[in-house]
Amino acid sequence: MSNTDFTIFSSTQLREFTTEVFVHFDVPYDDAILAADVLAYSDEHGIDSHGIARLKTYFDLLRTGKINPKPEIKIIREKSSTATIDGDNGLGLVVGPKCMDIAIQKAKLHGSGWVSVCNTNHYGAAGYYPVMALKDDIIGLSMTNTTKGVAPFNGAEKMLGTNPLAIAFPAYKEPPIIIDLASSAVAYGKVEIADRKNEKIPEGWCIDKNGYSTTMPSEMINGGALLPLGSDKDGSGHKGYCLASMVDILSAVLSGANWGPFTVPFAINSALPEKQVGKGIGHFFGAWEIDGFRDKNEFKTNIDEWIHTMRNTLPRPGTSGVLIPGDPEREAYQLRMRDGIPLHKEVVNSLMDIASYTGINIPS
Amino acid sequence: MSNTDFTIFSSTQLREFTTEVFVHFDVPYDDAILAADVLAYSDEHGIDSHGIARLKTYFDLLRTGKINPKPEIKIIREKSSTATIDGDNGLGLVVGPKCMDIAIQKAKLHGSGWVSVCNTNHYGAAGYYPVMALKDDIIGLSMTNTTKGVAPFNGAEKMLGTNPLAIAFPAYKEPPIIIDLASSAVAYGKVEIADRKNEKIPEGWCIDKNGYSTTMPSEMINGGALLPLGSDKDGSGHKGYCLASMVDILSAVLSGANWGPFTVPFAINSALPEKQVGKGIGHFFGAWEIDGFRDKNEFKTNIDEWIHTMRNTLPRPGTSGVLIPGDPEREAYQLRMRDGIPLHKEVVNSLMDIASYTGINIPS
Repeated sequence: MSNTDFTIFSSTQLREFTTEVFVHFDVPYDDAILAADVLAYSDEHGIDSHGIARLKTYFDLLRTGKINPKPEIKIIREKSSTATIDGDNGLGLVVGPKCMDIAIQKAKLHGSGWVSVCNTNHYGAAGYYPVMALKDDIIGLSMTNTTKGVAPFNGAEKMLGTNPLAIAFPAYKEPPIIIDLASSAVAYGKVEIADRKNEKIPEGWCIDKNGYSTTMPSEMINGGALLPLGSDKDGSGHKGYCLASMVDILSAVLSGANWGPFTVPFAINSALPEKQVGKGIGHFFGAWEIDGFRDKNEFKTNIDEWIHTMRNTLPRPGTSGVLIPGDPEREAYQLRMRDGIPLHKEVVNSLMDIASYTGINIPS
Repeated sequence: MSNTDFTIFSSTQLREFTTEVFVHFDVPYDDAILAADVLAYSDEHGIDSHGIARLKTYFDLLRTGKINPKPEIKIIREKSSTATIDGDNGLGLVVGPKCMDIAIQKAKLHGSGWVSVCNTNHYGAAGYYPVMALKDDIIGLSMTNTTKGVAPFNGAEKMLGTNPLAIAFPAYKEPPIIIDLASSAVAYGKVEIADRKNEKIPEGWCIDKNGYSTTMPSEMINGGALLPLGSDKDGSGHKGYCLASMVDILSAVLSGANWGPFTVPFAINSALPEKQVGKGIGHFFGAWEIDGFRDKNEFKTNIDEWIHTMRNTLPRPGTSGVLIPGDPEREAYQLRMRDGIPLHKEVVNSLMDIASYTGINIPS
């Protein structure tokens, strides 16, 4: 891919366009701003797979009436530190932040807050949600289940999603620690990129449609599956399967959403699961107030020391040494807020399609 | 290792011996029974590394006065759904269950309960604790930090422990789902076994003292390190590092225990860290009452369906197919409660040493 495949946009341009597109489909203005903020978080932090590159899919779902633009989210069960919420089939980008906020409010009152969510849709990057909690010195956590793409350990077919887990810890003088990881060995996007470039992929990423390990991206794409984190027996692939299961159960079985292979797909042209076992997909949000455990300033000062200690690890030869979770995204943020956000021509084309359908121009 | 290397004991024999040894060192009788139960859980479920094979280390620590046999555990900070507890340098096998119980009681009152623990010691198998919660239809979670043994991603030295995470979900007619995983690619015990057998280990388990990948167990043992789950760049080793960091911070930074490379070692003859940054090691316990989110019978019925669905996954060629987390331990339990628990002669010798020191005989 040459540089001419990319066009640079400012974050403000993308936020304005995204907001207007959501408003066009009757999403209330404040909700549209919020949804645009969730997508912009990804684009600004270099998480290209979860930002405006996906606007076209949200657009398709709104255009065809598959997502409710004006959801009334409802608490359907509650105790002081827990709740289950029905997202009324709204945008995950709107339902997600509102539910995370309820978890945060509960943590302020009771030390911790936990919200499971059913009847919702794709919520963007998992890392957005714990970051919401940082300003209140709260440790935030988020999980979501996603459409099947990953084989369970020793399985030969897709049964679970890439089911991510994110958690963030505030520091004092240092930037926060932000963990955001999918429970698969790699993201599907990496396989797609290798396929486009006609390159092989490493052992341990994928199996083909018969369950054999493959290094050919096309063999995964045509009926194969991703492998869980840890990949195979030697690498402890059962652990990635366990993590994906945990995320699936907390997000979807606990909330009454669709789980495992029945999880509703995100893209509009994907095959629907053979049956529904719940409502929509599921998220799970958590919040722990640090002051419920330890003086928050002591904690944050200790986190600074923890960060310094890890940064001072002897580096492995041939590497740039140990990073702190969140470092790569912070580096991308600084570059992109200064130089702009490069969008691949395929993404730009998808925005042009949206612009021509809605009559909304990308601001210049 | 031939069969003659092993002697068979009944679980009752081991429980009685363990209890008497703890009582010998002034552990109150009820606490000794509890500690023996935690160790027996591992032996009965085939988790040989965390059962009576470690009694000699607890013995050494009690004999030399390094562990307080009569801890008075103290809540040092509390909100309705959270607490931090000082374990008064007691046996983790006693402090752990008592703190997990506080998390469970909080969940019954407030929907969830969270307890971070400092000034404690090794607590046995992480999976014991969530299993405690199952009888009350509570989802339990446990984590602990452990002595350094694992290099952070791109690091060339030990900085974190194998920091495990365990969580369990009750089912209706099916046995529960019990997840218990270390955040390293493999356990140190696997490297030791390969070394004893003079066998090579797979790529991705270890690095040598200079940070280079090695397949020679001795090169890890002599100043090298284990690798995190995911192993290397291709396998997403940064994810295992993120998980180990999460466990370290929730268990130790949040509670005020020693964290990262400063975590106190378990074995008495291990080198002490260069400084102390807190008190003892740290645990983190959690409990969510299912009824705080969803009708518990609906949840458990859904978990049964989840289990059936995963079991029905097409198996990968050459494997026995998809298991449910907890299956291998259940299978071991059935065999061992019928046929007894085989102990390696090295373990038996360590028990004989304890017997000769204390005058307590292994019951016949």
